[in-house]
Amino acid sequence: MSNPGIITLTTDFGTADTFVGQMKGVILEIHPGAQIVDLTHEVPAHDIVAGAVALRAGYAAFPRGTVHVAVVDPGVGTTRRGIVVRTARHTFVAPDNGLLSKILEEVVVESAHVLKSERHRRAEVSATFEGRDVFAPAAAWLLRGIVPDELGPPAGDLVRLPPSGPPLEPGRPTPVRVLMVDRFGNVTLAVARNAIDTSQPLRVETKGETITTVLYTYGDSRDDCPFLLFNSAGYLEIAVREGRAADRLGLLAGDEVLVTAGPAGPAGERG
Amino acid sequence: MSNPGIITLTTDFGTADTFVGQMKGVILEIHPGAQIVDLTHEVPAHDIVAGAVALRAGYAAFPRGTVHVAVVDPGVGTTRRGIVVRTARHTFVAPDNGLLSKILEEVVVESAHVLKSERHRRAEVSATFEGRDVFAPAAAWLLRGIVPDELGPPAGDLVRLPPSGPPLEPGRPTPVRVLMVDRFGNVTLAVARNAIDTSQPLRVETKGETITTVLYTYGDSRDDCPFLLFNSAGYLEIAVREGRAADRLGLLAGDEVLVTAGPAGPAGERG
Amino acid sequence: MSNPGIITLTTDFGTADTFVGQMKGVILEIHPGAQIVDLTHEVPAHDIVAGAVALRAGYAAFPRGTVHVAVVDPGVGTTRRGIVVRTARHTFVAPDNGLLSKILEEVVVESAHVLKSERHRRAEVSATFEGRDVFAPAAAWLLRGIVPDELGPPAGDLVRLPPSGPPLEPGRPTPVRVLMVDRFGNVTLAVARNAIDTSQPLRVETKGETITTVLYTYGDSRDDCPFLLFNSAGYLEIAVREGRAADRLGLLAGDEVLVTAGPAGPAGERG
Repeated sequence: MSNPGIITLTTDFGTADTFVGQMKGVILEIHPGAQIVDLTHEVPAHDIVAGAVALRAGYAAFPRGTVHVAVVDPGVGTTRRGIVVRTARHTFVAPDNGLLSKILEEVVVESAHVLKSERHRRAEVSATFEGRDVFAPAAAWLLRGIVPDELGPPAGDLVRLPPSGPPLEPGRPTPVRVLMVDRFGNVTLAVARNAIDTSQPLRVETKGETITTVLYTYGDSRDDCPFLLFNSAGYLEIAVREGRAADRLGLLAGDEVLVTAGPAGPAGERG
Repeated sequence: MSNPGIITLTTDFGTADTFVGQMKGVILEIHPGAQIVDLTHEVPAHDIVAGAVALRAGYAAFPRGTVHVAVVDPGVGTTRRGIVVRTARHTFVAPDNGLLSKILEEVVVESAHVLKSERHRRAEVSATFEGRDVFAPAAAWLLRGIVPDELGPPAGDLVRLPPSGPPLEPGRPTPVRVLMVDRFGNVTLAVARNAIDTSQPLRVETKGETITTVLYTYGDSRDDCPFLLFNSAGYLEIAVREGRAADRLGLLAGDEVLVTAGPAGPAGERG
Repeated sequence: MSNPGIITLTTDFGTADTFVGQMKGVILEIHPGAQIVDLTHEVPAHDIVAGAVALRAGYAAFPRGTVHVAVVDPGVGTTRRGIVVRTARHTFVAPDNGLLSKILEEVVVESAHVLKSERHRRAEVSATFEGRDVFAPAAAWLLRGIVPDELGPPAGDLVRLPPSGPPLEPGRPTPVRVLMVDRFGNVTLAVARNAIDTSQPLRVETKGETITTVLYTYGDSRDDCPFLLFNSAGYLEIAVREGRAADRLGLLAGDEVLVTAGPAGPAGERG
């Protein structure tokens, strides 16, 4: 069986309205065999950072050739650009507002183009729903085999959000952002496993609790104390066995904790 | 690649239970290649008007030949009829309880039949789940290519809900219903763009606020005041830039506002 | 058109995170033509009983050959086994923690194997997300046509949850569990239609109310009093016409009610 191609969708549209369904209708008119997969539509409304984090958490599980469409777009209908970004494995279609920031931190961009082609959008473009009228058609055409060049001119520099925090300095407590809280109350921190020496001790300080236990999986915990692990997206996470670490520690996405990687030196001591 | 055909689903079943999944299982048994797309399953329980509004908002983005199944069905298992309605572009399968009302206001019906055929429903029809046992199979058979005649006799008159409000009279404040509130708090009013002269001024009066600014898109707003626009479904909408107009104005689906289209004449003045 | 095969997913992952999408990406890489259907992802976190009930409610609507993947897995990453269970019609892939219990009560198991094969899981298995790295790949390989033998050795005895309650004794009030409450507030009781004599009277006693009316469907109710019916999954259900029986009676999943099947004998009388 030939691979008909996959399009994923990441939006802040929710599923109560018909916005997501309409995007799928447009995609299937252009490319009837598309496999369309929802990554999430529960990004908080207009929250570009949360959208970037969700897309980064989910995209890598998809095969080479997947087209990822992301729409968290408070500037819809204004002059902000729509872009298509291609890497060695995947293609991303999104507004140029920072939504691809977390992806851009870890992949090599092969090409980036602006979505300009009138031929590859709906005949009548709504000023309030470019997800349906611009981004969905572009993705469907890409899956049908057009090259990004056909969609518009090279994009030049892309909008990037500020990074989530300074790099960890060994032995020094560094403020680190909570990237997200998942359905289980697990707290994802902006510390990538491949950016630190995991053989060294780790310490996370939150309001009132210091956590130093690093486990391999949730079931390894023998009590109901918070512990650390590296989660399935490759980030440092605070968890509680069959409990909600976020509630226990009073943490929300965007909050900061102090992370110390490696043995604390004198400068890192806190009284 | 041949088009395997699309079925959309609009229900009040939610996604926590397995009702929607069961409908899909039945469809795929009859027509394994179907592309099944969720329009929404978050129609409030038993709310036929909200279901009709959702279906009207979403169906038109789908290609010719799509079969739309809608199930908001407080009368399931009683004598209310199931129907299949065909238009030039689409086919609709639903209970005959008004759920197709908003569609029927804007399309020409080519045929309408009652779902009677025993051959095209599940062998054992549950009295409480005709979505799975009657509507889903009918849609799958239609996608396989049977004609509505095979499903049952002509339906004659269909149940229609009362229209959402009187037509706007130029220059006179007219009570108009809130059709829906979307995830972003935008308020859709029962005023279709193609039913009024959009070159004339517009005024919407709610409890305590009068709104006269008409913008092209959300990003055109320079402040946090409510404004009007015509949304991606072609309806008049009240919005607030990156805010929730519905919360700000205390509006819910079903509420009424006063809309004046065209310059207010003396009869339209309010002291 | 050849049947590309169906995989259903039942999890406690919710849809706000990208976990479910990631599972689908992995499945589609191995078997690009798979039809993937969500049964539900709203099983309460770590609630194996609720997951077992949902899977039991939904699986039977799917055609022969469907592979059902269920992941409610508080023991992920520990020594609990992953299993593949085959029956005459379906295949189930899940952790061996009781999640298949309700299915196992009503089907004949043809084979059960442990998921051991390194070749049929992702190269790097996360300790916290075997849904993506072990269960999803196994299901996709099964759909591609491998036999369960290739996934690992025979499983022997499977973990089973205690049954939902004692069998009903004719004429005697028996404590029976609430299996689930659906979106409409209907209350599913652990009484299967095929386990009792439905020609005999039925009585359900809850805190403060006794219900003896048995109807065929919701629309047959002429008032707003709670009544009984056998629902589309084959279980005894308490419902209120266009109302929420669970709220009215204060019932939640896991609560107990007293059910008397058949005419109450002297021993069954309650003062």
